[in-house]
Amino acid sequence: MDKNDLVYGRNSVEGILASSKRNINKIYLQKGIKYDEKIKKIVDLAKTNNIIIQEVPKEKLNMMAGENHQGIAASVSPVEYIDFDDFLSSIQSKTNNAMVIILDGVEDPHNLGSIIRTSVAAGADAIIIPRRRSSPVTPTVEKASAGAIDKIPIIQVTNLNKAIEKLKENHFWVIGAESSGEKYYFDIEYNDMNCAIITGGENQGISQLVKKNCDFLVKIPMPGNINSLNVANATSILIYEVIRQRIKQNANIKS
Amino acid sequence: MDKNDLVYGRNSVEGILASSKRNINKIYLQKGIKYDEKIKKIVDLAKTNNIIIQEVPKEKLNMMAGENHQGIAASVSPVEYIDFDDFLSSIQSKTNNAMVIILDGVEDPHNLGSIIRTSVAAGADAIIIPRRRSSPVTPTVEKASAGAIDKIPIIQVTNLNKAIEKLKENHFWVIGAESSGEKYYFDIEYNDMNCAIITGGENQGISQLVKKNCDFLVKIPMPGNINSLNVANATSILIYEVIRQRIKQNANIKS
Repeated sequence: MDKNDLVYGRNSVEGILASSKRNINKIYLQKGIKYDEKIKKIVDLAKTNNIIIQEVPKEKLNMMAGENHQGIAASVSPVEYIDFDDFLSSIQSKTNNAMVIILDGVEDPHNLGSIIRTSVAAGADAIIIPRRRSSPVTPTVEKASAGAIDKIPIIQVTNLNKAIEKLKENHFWVIGAESSGEKYYFDIEYNDMNCAIITGGENQGISQLVKKNCDFLVKIPMPGNINSLNVANATSILIYEVIRQRIKQNANIKS
Repeated sequence: MDKNDLVYGRNSVEGILASSKRNINKIYLQKGIKYDEKIKKIVDLAKTNNIIIQEVPKEKLNMMAGENHQGIAASVSPVEYIDFDDFLSSIQSKTNNAMVIILDGVEDPHNLGSIIRTSVAAGADAIIIPRRRSSPVTPTVEKASAGAIDKIPIIQVTNLNKAIEKLKENHFWVIGAESSGEKYYFDIEYNDMNCAIITGGENQGISQLVKKNCDFLVKIPMPGNINSLNVANATSILIYEVIRQRIKQNANIKS
């Protein structure tokens, strides 16, 4: 396999160009594509950064990237995972309003990508994923994240429970989403605390040991006729409750 | 094409068996599959209902349903859309706590499916989708909904704006999610009102005319470094704010 990742889709390619964290080797542009605003912006950014743009027929792009490329792809250096200890040092200054998202076994790349997107939009500080039982950050994840990948530290750990211990030592409260949780997720106060939100994979939820290591287990009420949610939707609901509470508190302090 | 849909995946097949709203013609079971609890339950339900179970090799199932079938598929009558006027009559008794979800151009079947799943879990009353510029309810949608499809009325309308007018006549408040919204979604009080939540498609959001017809436009705050969310995640966040407020109010009334 090529050492570079092939990233495709307009938002993804633009995101990488804008963040400049990763080396772009080359951009592939579909021959005869309409130069709309987005494409123009990408081409201008590429030229400013002296990146080679190669025009290729649509069929070739299809072969390289599947049919979801929206006329553009880029060969880029792979995502760099961030070292957990480095992250913990960098976060020291952020007292009582940090938020990290821990994904215990999210194996679907679309789910992982859209969770990363929500996390970045919400201003979360990091995503932690285990090395096993989890989708790595592939180009499909990158596409589903709509260019969010390079805007948040992504940390791969060998042992999720050790990572949780370290977070606790660093003054994080660890909150797991679990149908057996005693409280609803909105009955926790997330203000004035560093929090780590854990959600489980598509099939089995949070693993037993991780569950035991949580400070709180919270549940999402399901008054309707089905008792589980898509993990990306569930994680987004939890993340935004934290954001809601924090914005409300700031508004109250100001007024 | 076959008049029947091929539905696949354990939750989907179980969901259809349990709801009994749709005719199951036949169930296809992977030869040699391990009879775990879920498979046993499905087979028992099928036998109780006199449904033919045909064992087929894994390769054949792969050909029929792609590789995501989890060892089981079923040939079933297509989803029946519900008539909008029938729905409106049926909802009359539900005063001031109905919730319908309107999707203005959600074209990705995974997004549509997972939104349906969240809607059912939250106990919403209906999903309204336009006939054009929207994914119809396909087997992929069904799979992504994890069996939720048959647990909520799905209404297909030709003209979304006429549907909005009718909802208003029937005492619904219509709330659209839009980045230009004046208020945050959590600054609206959803208690003691019938509400229709509208979210827009993956690419262009809510259409201009629909936007104009909303009673309120609300935005989701994005304090982070990206300014859009996956539509299924965004819709789930909105739906659960309604649920959060209603559960909180009920708890307050009781205490």
